[in-house]
Amino acid sequence: MSSCAYLDKLIAALQIMPGVGPRSATRIAYALLDHKRAEGLQMAQIVQEALEHIELCPCCRNYSDGGVCAICANDKRRHSGLLCIVETPADVQAIESAGTFFGTYFVLHGHLSPLDGIGPQELGLELLEQRLQSGEIKEAILATNPTVEGEATAAYIAAMARRYQLTMSKIASGVPFGGNLDSVDEHTLATSITERRPFV
Amino acid sequence: MSSCAYLDKLIAALQIMPGVGPRSATRIAYALLDHKRAEGLQMAQIVQEALEHIELCPCCRNYSDGGVCAICANDKRRHSGLLCIVETPADVQAIESAGTFFGTYFVLHGHLSPLDGIGPQELGLELLEQRLQSGEIKEAILATNPTVEGEATAAYIAAMARRYQLTMSKIASGVPFGGNLDSVDEHTLATSITERRPFV
Repeated sequence: MSSCAYLDKLIAALQIMPGVGPRSATRIAYALLDHKRAEGLQMAQIVQEALEHIELCPCCRNYSDGGVCAICANDKRRHSGLLCIVETPADVQAIESAGTFFGTYFVLHGHLSPLDGIGPQELGLELLEQRLQSGEIKEAILATNPTVEGEATAAYIAAMARRYQLTMSKIASGVPFGGNLDSVDEHTLATSITERRPFV
Repeated sequence: MSSCAYLDKLIAALQIMPGVGPRSATRIAYALLDHKRAEGLQMAQIVQEALEHIELCPCCRNYSDGGVCAICANDKRRHSGLLCIVETPADVQAIESAGTFFGTYFVLHGHLSPLDGIGPQELGLELLEQRLQSGEIKEAILATNPTVEGEATAAYIAAMARRYQLTMSKIASGVPFGGNLDSVDEHTLATSITERRPFV
């Protein structure tokens, strides 16, 4: 508690951001006040604009500036016939950064979790089914997280997709590049052996 | 770079905050978009209001909601005759949290640094001199940071204050509570010995 009510409100407000606790919030507040007032006001403006304007692409449910997103609007990518199904918009960005996928995406915004009230409707599976039966998709790649919930969600979608004679695939699991084999967990290592591939 | 221009702008804007790099900014942006839109908008509003409304107290230069701050407006504190001179508003908050000082403050907003163009005028020393000669102050406590620049600034202020027959003091330097003596730096340890006090 300082003697300045606005300052206390500012420090409290900044703590809604993940990873920002009371100490960082105080440091940020003083930095903005001490020598970054103009930048701080601009940031507030941009946060407001972004949160008001960013919506979900009606085609893939990824974040878009309004209407169909740039990836869905790209004819080349749409005609590839490849659809990658991911849990979050952050996953799309991660795969885009990897730079080897040139199809379109579908973002679930979560995974099936009946206890939290997250069912097929919350994940937009109706819209996904429309896309799968449209005939535009030749192969659907399941790229949900390698967790129990992610795998369960993938299994549910695979069961749904089976009706439409599509090729279904799943991103490869195995040892990540870098590091040592002995630091990889047992489950990953077991998978990397059962799913071994011919050495070329 | 995502396919959403607003998102890219949001991630860039968040990085003006100290301690927030590209990865944290991305995490914050997705958290705000995914499930904290209302809180994010409220935060933006509060940041804007705070940066527009918080000004310097005309008496002590600490942050205030407008006009004289709560500490300077407190008669009891003003009549104590004690003035604590600190470098930043954060120092005021730290001393207030310590809970043993009941006088008023003067905030320099930095330290003398001629190479960076920070001289007596930038630190408000004219205003400080007015307060020192007003007759209200009996003792001025120098609480600048224990750094070369902080000590130089303290020496400058002490020279200025000497004209007004005030008691000048400096906060104690020595070993901090907690931890081991062997982890305290040599300079601090040397000071703690030369400035030793009778054991009571």
